[in-house]
Amino acid sequence: MIVLFTDFGQPYVGQMHAVLQGAAPGVPVVELCTDLPAWNRRAAAYLLPAFAAAFPTGSVFLAVVDPGVGSARAALALRAEGRWFVGPDNGLLGLVARRAGAPACWEVTWRPERLSASFHGRDLFAPVAARLAGGATALPAELGRPIAFPQGADADWPDDLAEVVYVDGFGNVVTGLRAACLPDAAQLAAGGRLFPRARTFSDLAPGAAFWYENANGLAEIAVNRGRAADILELAVGDGVSVI
Amino acid sequence: MIVLFTDFGQPYVGQMHAVLQGAAPGVPVVELCTDLPAWNRRAAAYLLPAFAAAFPTGSVFLAVVDPGVGSARAALALRAEGRWFVGPDNGLLGLVARRAGAPACWEVTWRPERLSASFHGRDLFAPVAARLAGGATALPAELGRPIAFPQGADADWPDDLAEVVYVDGFGNVVTGLRAACLPDAAQLAAGGRLFPRARTFSDLAPGAAFWYENANGLAEIAVNRGRAADILELAVGDGVSVI
Amino acid sequence: MIVLFTDFGQPYVGQMHAVLQGAAPGVPVVELCTDLPAWNRRAAAYLLPAFAAAFPTGSVFLAVVDPGVGSARAALALRAEGRWFVGPDNGLLGLVARRAGAPACWEVTWRPERLSASFHGRDLFAPVAARLAGGATALPAELGRPIAFPQGADADWPDDLAEVVYVDGFGNVVTGLRAACLPDAAQLAAGGRLFPRARTFSDLAPGAAFWYENANGLAEIAVNRGRAADILELAVGDGVSVI
Repeated sequence: MIVLFTDFGQPYVGQMHAVLQGAAPGVPVVELCTDLPAWNRRAAAYLLPAFAAAFPTGSVFLAVVDPGVGSARAALALRAEGRWFVGPDNGLLGLVARRAGAPACWEVTWRPERLSASFHGRDLFAPVAARLAGGATALPAELGRPIAFPQGADADWPDDLAEVVYVDGFGNVVTGLRAACLPDAAQLAAGGRLFPRARTFSDLAPGAAFWYENANGLAEIAVNRGRAADILELAVGDGVSVI
Repeated sequence: MIVLFTDFGQPYVGQMHAVLQGAAPGVPVVELCTDLPAWNRRAAAYLLPAFAAAFPTGSVFLAVVDPGVGSARAALALRAEGRWFVGPDNGLLGLVARRAGAPACWEVTWRPERLSASFHGRDLFAPVAARLAGGATALPAELGRPIAFPQGADADWPDDLAEVVYVDGFGNVVTGLRAACLPDAAQLAAGGRLFPRARTFSDLAPGAAFWYENANGLAEIAVNRGRAADILELAVGDGVSVI
Repeated sequence: MIVLFTDFGQPYVGQMHAVLQGAAPGVPVVELCTDLPAWNRRAAAYLLPAFAAAFPTGSVFLAVVDPGVGSARAALALRAEGRWFVGPDNGLLGLVARRAGAPACWEVTWRPERLSASFHGRDLFAPVAARLAGGATALPAELGRPIAFPQGADADWPDDLAEVVYVDGFGNVVTGLRAACLPDAAQLAAGGRLFPRARTFSDLAPGAAFWYENANGLAEIAVNRGRAADILELAVGDGVSVI
């Protein structure tokens, strides 16, 4: 299975589908996120391991949040806990790598005949992902060379990010904090308000604000039957405190 | 064919695709609606039978508008006119059941090893839908037990809903009224305006407002080459009168 | 491969998928654009050849921007450079036809038993596309008759359109001008501002505005790490000048 994880939508996602279809016919392609916060490789870096854990071994994440496309930044293929992650060397894969301990990593040195300056998702990363989707356990030698995972900007990033990293279609406010790493009695504070912990939406009255462990293990601030991001005026990048 | 009908978009739809892909590999999955009005099980209940009629026998509708997720509300599998409907017991399947006469119904009592408190679409309903997609004509006994369709909130809902239930990407305003149940000469009134009936958009001048029988049999208020919802200031939940 | 290129999103796209799945099971369907500017057949006409060039021979573009649906406008099937284009006769296919020289063209005279007045994408064009997806090199005689490509509104359209034709999810502003047809030193002007040419985003400072040849060969006005459409107040239909 190839899993799309990116900040670009149409028509670019469709163009990636077409490349994948040609290079890996019959391999299912799942659009996990095509609406990540634009250019925000750090926010995405904290979402990726939260989502990836539930995908089967052998899945290939085509992870492209790539504001430096066309520059000298390298391309990476990372193998962690049996899953592949293909994307730019800009921190996006940093948390996956860190949590996996010592993942196998390759620098992708192969380049296609035609490489646009602005869409490596289609021209470079998708063909590499297609090559890995057939059950590869190492990057083929003609595509690149093994390296140690190159820590860059992400070296200074914390293990959990006390910030809003995503707002979903309901207006729920996802943070970069793993709920399992917070005390049971923790409260979260954001935007000048304090949020108690709850189990799920239906335990509270409509309109009540709270935080809970979402279905992907992250701490999420929400309002029962309301758009938390709008009601609480919270957006990606806003800080969160653990009380 | 498995058909997604829900009020949640990314990344949740992608996570459902991954579950379905694992449990029912090769079965096509169609995203019919992943943008239903949030938490609005009543509006969705009137849309579902309008869409379902065109899908082939054996289709499995994975119908999840589920503000009560994590509470004691039951899970249902309904078989009506050869199609399956899997979803929460909260009225969402009420109109499908009513129009089918006496549909076969099961309470889903199976629970997965890991059941999140907020995402039964992925954890509970998707695996059940996958089991039914292979041509089942009854819910396997290990998944649940036959029951009479449990009318709840929907017992009091009318056969047709004189309200706006959906606004599409063009701004067209879909009502919960079946056009075939309205007099040919009926006019609709909403937001203080009166709308004559027309056959289709191109029969009117650009900018003209009207109602017509949409391609799914529902009465829809529209403006030729204009965004009716914005121009007429109509939104989901607004009342409509038949004149 | 069947490629969706249309101005309508949910639930209509899902209904087309269901028809295609029934009529051409196993044929991959790619959603290239389901968010084209509503009713704007001219803007779409300039995007279509830019995208189509990268798709493999045998691809079938199901191209539906169809404000005249339900009127007397004809339905076309066009074969150009080994790819099929199925859609309404309203100019949408005009630039594909013009650039292909003398493409093979058919008028689709077949009509389904049930033809809605507002959704020919589902009822008419999708079944025809499904028939062509198996490798056809001519429209089957029972579906229509060969004709010369019927130039209509598009006869007066220029070879390149100096207007904004699309705004993508990053806010990038795509024009109908092929970059390869512009002088290397060309500057673009729009909204009272002048934009120099650049190679790609990362060559400029964050916030800098420029134009560049995008990954599909069109001239695009962009801001590095910013939403050009919002910052520069540009929208579909706005004029662009080449300086």
